[in-house]
Amino acid sequence: MSDSERVCDLAEEQLLARIFPLLPATAATLVGPGDDAAVISAPDGRFVVSTDVLVQDRHFIRDWSTGYDVGWRAAVQNLADIAAMGARPTSLVVSLVLPRTEEVQWVLDLARGLAEACAPYGAGVVGGDLSSGDAIVVAVTVHGDLDGGDPVLRSGARPGDVVAHAGVLGRSAAGLDLLTDAEETAAHPELVAAYLRPDPPIGSGTRARLAGATAMLDVSDGLLRDGGRIARASGVVLDLDAPLRALQTDLAALAEAGRVLDVDPSRWVLTGGEDHGLLATFPPDAELPSEFRVIGRVVAATADRSPSVTVQGAAPEGDEGWDHFAGHGHPRD
Amino acid sequence: MSDSERVCDLAEEQLLARIFPLLPATAATLVGPGDDAAVISAPDGRFVVSTDVLVQDRHFIRDWSTGYDVGWRAAVQNLADIAAMGARPTSLVVSLVLPRTEEVQWVLDLARGLAEACAPYGAGVVGGDLSSGDAIVVAVTVHGDLDGGDPVLRSGARPGDVVAHAGVLGRSAAGLDLLTDAEETAAHPELVAAYLRPDPPIGSGTRARLAGATAMLDVSDGLLRDGGRIARASGVVLDLDAPLRALQTDLAALAEAGRVLDVDPSRWVLTGGEDHGLLATFPPDAELPSEFRVIGRVVAATADRSPSVTVQGAAPEGDEGWDHFAGHGHPRD
Repeated sequence: MSDSERVCDLAEEQLLARIFPLLPATAATLVGPGDDAAVISAPDGRFVVSTDVLVQDRHFIRDWSTGYDVGWRAAVQNLADIAAMGARPTSLVVSLVLPRTEEVQWVLDLARGLAEACAPYGAGVVGGDLSSGDAIVVAVTVHGDLDGGDPVLRSGARPGDVVAHAGVLGRSAAGLDLLTDAEETAAHPELVAAYLRPDPPIGSGTRARLAGATAMLDVSDGLLRDGGRIARASGVVLDLDAPLRALQTDLAALAEAGRVLDVDPSRWVLTGGEDHGLLATFPPDAELPSEFRVIGRVVAATADRSPSVTVQGAAPEGDEGWDHFAGHGHPRD
Repeated sequence: MSDSERVCDLAEEQLLARIFPLLPATAATLVGPGDDAAVISAPDGRFVVSTDVLVQDRHFIRDWSTGYDVGWRAAVQNLADIAAMGARPTSLVVSLVLPRTEEVQWVLDLARGLAEACAPYGAGVVGGDLSSGDAIVVAVTVHGDLDGGDPVLRSGARPGDVVAHAGVLGRSAAGLDLLTDAEETAAHPELVAAYLRPDPPIGSGTRARLAGATAMLDVSDGLLRDGGRIARASGVVLDLDAPLRALQTDLAALAEAGRVLDVDPSRWVLTGGEDHGLLATFPPDAELPSEFRVIGRVVAATADRSPSVTVQGAAPEGDEGWDHFAGHGHPRD
């Protein structure tokens, strides 16, 4: 144990007083932190809300992730859920469970990571709760505004729509595999960074809605698994183009890491999660925002072809992604 | 280990499919659970939001609390924060961390506890997240609507106002002390129940606002400590009447338990937390909702009398309540 200042050296209110100044404000805040609750403007007459939790030794380990990384990732994976509805993030609240021996600096770094991930989108942290516990837990709830538009659900994909994606695929999974392989941790820092601090196109959610997106989600559990969710919710088949053509950029970015780890990069691209890019469907005549690449087509489900994802008309091989409790396909759960 | 069904026997989506039907809906839900985010109606053009977390072995222990109790308490302590703003709760989202070996039945009981605590107020559970972890964590975020009114802050108390309280004081703390004392666990089941499943007057928050409350919060850390928060936020002194007169009902309800445990019941009433009653100040001419009892007066702070709580003009003796990290005054932290 070093002499660093620990969480247990401060009263809860003292710790909060150190955290608050680091957190971003938002123009939507009518009453900010410090009262029983915050009051947030919702001029649209609706708000969009989602919650996501990060747990130490499940979603991150202390050896790999700094407090900044954990704060950044907690913010981004939540912001992406708001983007996936076609909404603009406005505000977050954060419940934080910390061991009493945690360094205060780690917590302040987490607050800075949260803040810097939110800042480009004008989203503020408007409230929170602290508790002690044996392991770090960061539970974030995020809110967004639809600015008068209709939310983009998972259920609106129609045969004839194009399937498109904005952001990167497979980077986070490759970064995790590099970190897991003790000999290759230093290789490809850009992929390791993509795992530690994913940077999805949050602003593209609103642009996709304005361009007429019929269905959308953020890819948190892998392209095949999450594509399957749109397929089942919409009662359609998402038929992806040949990855070598449609996902060429992602495959190229992963080729060298694939050679190093003896992994087929298409596995990362098709099943790797946590990049939080936006997978959307658009009417065939829609003018797509430039960051969306067409990667397939929506076709009708039939008696022989249940709602699912296919690749060039065939069922994909292998697993689909990972599951929190079954731990399927994920090394640390 | 029994043969009971465990969380790890199910995929996350299977577990969610078992939980969702138990959760209450709310009229405010425009898009419910199952998409990337929920969409909630906020006709007021604002929403009120707060978050609170319960951690196993900090806020509850498995030997004492059933899943139902934990769900109930997680809901209630959040609903009380909305009430304390003078708002009406509309919707909750829940992040749940569970050991993989947790019984599925325990989780379903938690969902039922959440649901039944919310039902009387029309609040729905509109989203959530599940993760595995070594200890149970229940992080709830709750939203409310002000129905066009002004939020009741902690900072609005003015000299001349009356101090009033709705709900019970000291019951939860006495129940916890009974549970902690192995020989007296079976005594006073009504106090143990008040600890396990507090039932504060959530609906009184709106009524207090309509009656002109100038400041309000819910008593989660004890009357003296929480009263001090209103005092400091408002820059005033909250002078409480003699407890034997003003808090007679609460003291009487605790008298026998106090004898059994050799505790002065006024300690429970003045410093016991987690009853989540509403402490409010009202203008002297306000017509108080009948469930509010006047327990003191607001007086001006002076050079000799900084913003604080006094009892009959004097500083109270002893500790003020408890702190999550310092563990001050709480046996389990």
